[in-house]
Parts: sequence; structure tokens; C-alpha cells
Amino acid sequence: MNDDIRQRIRTIPDFPKPGIMFRDITTLLLDAEGLKLTIDRMAEAVDGPVDLVAGIEARGFLFGAALAVKLGAGMLLVRKDGKLPGATIAEDYALEYGTDRIAIHADALAPGARVLLVDDLIATGGTARAAVRLLRKAGAEVTQASFVVDLPELGGAEALRGDGIHVHSLVAFDGH
Amino acid sequence: MNDDIRQRIRTIPDFPKPGIMFRDITTLLLDAEGLKLTIDRMAEAVDGPVDLVAGIEARGFLFGAALAVKLGAGMLLVRKDGKLPGATIAEDYALEYGTDRIAIHADALAPGARVLLVDDLIATGGTARAAVRLLRKAGAEVTQASFVVDLPELGGAEALRGDGIHVHSLVAFDGH
Repeated sequence: MNDDIRQRIRTIPDFPKPGIMFRDITTLLLDAEGLKLTIDRMAEAVDGPVDLVAGIEARGFLFGAALAVKLGAGMLLVRKDGKLPGATIAEDYALEYGTDRIAIHADALAPGARVLLVDDLIATGGTARAAVRLLRKAGAEVTQASFVVDLPELGGAEALRGDGIHVHSLVAFDGH
Repeated sequence: MNDDIRQRIRTIPDFPKPGIMFRDITTLLLDAEGLKLTIDRMAEAVDGPVDLVAGIEARGFLFGAALAVKLGAGMLLVRKDGKLPGATIAEDYALEYGTDRIAIHADALAPGARVLLVDDLIATGGTARAAVRLLRKAGAEVTQASFVVDLPELGGAEALRGDGIHVHSLVAFDGH
């Protein structure tokens, strides 16, 4: 399934640290046909109307914005804390060591706005789950999330489903 | 000109530091019609065929990727040094205090590839000019750049023109 997309994603071993097989979507993006196919298939998987696409900084901005245009939706930025100029609301999430924090503009959405979460890849799901909590705290109706790549062994997609999210991805890779 | 786009950009004073009037394009992105208009008009201003859109991290990813899909081009990432997983080439540029460095994948483009540079805003042009040097060093033919916002008093667009780049922007704001 989606072998034409899978074959355009390269694997770089030991990035960002030894033992990690990094699934690199930059080669997919560089290929005009691959980029178009990716956005078309992400759009086809969307279930029902979407008011806003929420993209997670930075690679989620790439697929998110193109998908928002395709769907006729607006684009909402989920950024690292401190990057947004207006008043924000934030949410912490656990890293392997310590915590990190993401934020959205406090006035970014109206209560009940139907939001589709987008990122390039779902691994452990720490950031994506924090984004869902944050968007719901702001009043959004978040019921679906779309990723180019899923690493199912890391359990992020399953955890998101447990949060009541319909999760869609184009390709899955074994291992970490 | 483009008043429908201008009115969707808000100004936040004193971000990221006192005295700066920050032109915030997140409100433009949130508006589905505003986002569509922006990408349509950026596409209309493109002169001749484009093989790759080069977007500057992170806000340039938003407009760049959507524009690449619209143009039928690929998308090339210009990132802060250390963020790309493969072998890179890098270029330094001056900040107010010190220097910073941007990078692209060394194998991202074929010699002669026609590249359109995209970012959300052109101010002093330090990052954009470094991106042009970097893309040319990699063998690209870079002759045009597109921005949503120009701050002409800061001279970046004029400097880019001096580098042989056709510069297009949708709206200009006075002051810094």
C-alpha cells in the first residue's frame, strides 16, 4: 500500500543518535509527483468537514499547510513554546529525559472548531497527544489525525486511538 | 493592493523584543479564504517554470509547501544547521550579534535546477541572501524569491535584487 510513497522515503541510520533508523521524508518532498501524491492521499483519508488543520512544528507545517489548502481549511500552528507572538496556551509533554512544551495562540480557534491534526511522523506520540490535549483545552473538536509515516511498534498511533482519535497514516515502518 | 490579505495580518507590538512591530501571519493562515488567496497570488507572480520551491524554516515551510503543490514542483528544505539527517552543505550569515548558519541536504538538487525561494517575510534579508548563496553553491539556478510580507525600509528586498533575484511580495508594511 502506497509503495510509490514508501520508496521515496529514505532511511538514515544513527540520526539523531546511534541506533535510530531515521525515516527521512525530505526525499519525498523533493519529488514533485511524490509530494502531490502524498497530499492527495492524505486528503482522501479525511473523514467529514474540517475547519482547521493543526500542523506541528516544523515538518508538520509542510504537509499541514498544503493539506489545508487542498481541503479549503485554515491552518493552525502548534509551535514550540516561546515562538508565537500573541498570547498562548501551552501543554507539557514528557521526553526521554525531562519535559518539553508546545503552544498555540489562545485566540486561534472558536469553540467547536473541527480540527485535523497533522505531522510527518507518529512514533511514541508524545507531541501529538499533547497537541490533542491542548487543542481540546482550547475548545476544539479533535477527532482525527493524519501522518505520512507511522512507526507502530512505538505505540503512538494506538495511544492516540485510545484518546478517541481516528488515526490515518500512509506508510508504516518496522523498528524504531 | 492585496488589501484582503493585508487586513488578515495582525501586528503585535514589542515581539520578540521591545520596539519591534511583529507582522503576524498566523491570523492569515487561520483564515481558509486568506490562505487560499495567498497561495493563489504567490503562484500567479511566479515567472516561468520552477523545479523546486526552497522554503526557509519554519514559516517558509508553510507557504513553500502549499505553493510547491500548486506549481507542481518539489519542496526543498532550508533548515537551521543540525536539523537535517543527511550530509549537508551550510552557509553562515550575520545576526545583530554574532552569526547563524543554515543548511540544505548536499544531494537535494541537480545542477541547473530552477529554484524559487520562499519565506513568510523579508526584512534585512540576511537569511534569504544566505539561502541564495547556499542554493547557488549547490548548483541551483535561483532567479526569483517570493514573500508574503516585505518590510522595504529594512532593505532586504533591494539587496536580494542586487544579487540578481526577482523579488515578489504580496504586501509591504512601513517601519520595522
